[in-house]
Amino acid sequence: MGKGNITKEFIIEKAAVIFNKNGFAGASMSELMKETGLQKGGIYNHFKSKEEIVLAAFDYAIKKHNYAVYATYKEKKSALDKIKAIITFYKDYPLNPIIEGGCPIVNTAVDSDNTNPELKLRVRNVLSGWIKNLTFLIEEGIKLGEFKQNIDANDISVFVVTTLQGGVVIARSFEDVSYMEKIVKELIEYIERELII
Amino acid sequence: MGKGNITKEFIIEKAAVIFNKNGFAGASMSELMKETGLQKGGIYNHFKSKEEIVLAAFDYAIKKHNYAVYATYKEKKSALDKIKAIITFYKDYPLNPIIEGGCPIVNTAVDSDNTNPELKLRVRNVLSGWIKNLTFLIEEGIKLGEFKQNIDANDISVFVVTTLQGGVVIARSFEDVSYMEKIVKELIEYIERELII
Repeated sequence: MGKGNITKEFIIEKAAVIFNKNGFAGASMSELMKETGLQKGGIYNHFKSKEEIVLAAFDYAIKKHNYAVYATYKEKKSALDKIKAIITFYKDYPLNPIIEGGCPIVNTAVDSDNTNPELKLRVRNVLSGWIKNLTFLIEEGIKLGEFKQNIDANDISVFVVTTLQGGVVIARSFEDVSYMEKIVKELIEYIERELII
Repeated sequence: MGKGNITKEFIIEKAAVIFNKNGFAGASMSELMKETGLQKGGIYNHFKSKEEIVLAAFDYAIKKHNYAVYATYKEKKSALDKIKAIITFYKDYPLNPIIEGGCPIVNTAVDSDNTNPELKLRVRNVLSGWIKNLTFLIEEGIKLGEFKQNIDANDISVFVVTTLQGGVVIARSFEDVSYMEKIVKELIEYIERELII
């Protein structure tokens, strides 16, 4: 990686945290200049526009988040263990998120709503990806005879993703991870009941 | 109501919509001036500070929201019907919210997180109130023998409020109310199973 790319990566990493804390939609360039120690020109050497920085920072945040989730379940053998690992990942997440400032998806979903259609579309694509991934894992479990045959994998996935997103909002609001622990416990009971019993 | 109070109410109503759409935390006064047709001085005649306008607008939005929820269940006789009415209230809510721009609680929870401790505290108090209200309705059902005796009313309430909040985020992201319809259906099955069966 050349010096230019290293600086670019450095800007993106800083931007991801700043924008996740204060909003990707209303991204503050002065804050980014302060945190990187770079002048405006030094930042725009690497990016065509503010929008490009915002989108690169958002994509970086999501990639890092998705990789952390993947790491928790990739070694698991059964579909149930994979799904449980994904849900359990969120237990400490609200107060210990991958990117400081909370969940980039909840934050950006709210932040871009009514204000930034391009960013809103990216949020939607990430959410679709999460739902599809979970649906795929459930369908794998159905195929392998691990789960019941007559279940709607997509409906269950939507419910799980929705509740996890709500849990992040609630636990961060109360600054109390016990809210998320309850949600995770309830959701694991929910999927065991829906998929197996 | 005197002319001064009418103007004050008018400003609060406009502010509630503008701030709900663009963020209570980063409230835009120029937008409020445009929407009310008032000069800065004309607005500050009625309020000591921007913070006071923001809090008054937030309180107004919550009062209106809470009243709409209350109206859907106040005539219901059984505890189960009351709880079902509250959950069902959210079925069309994401794309037809009481205050234009979405749910003021989800919006402000995310918006005030990391940025505005006073507003964050108000969000927390409203969420606590919603959880307490639902807990009270469940406990009423337990006392009257309508529900099972050995249930944790608070845990169930946290789960319901959390999932509804997540549902608003997801359905607004997809601009598709069918996501919320699925969530409402799942949640009603959840409470019937937890409270009765």
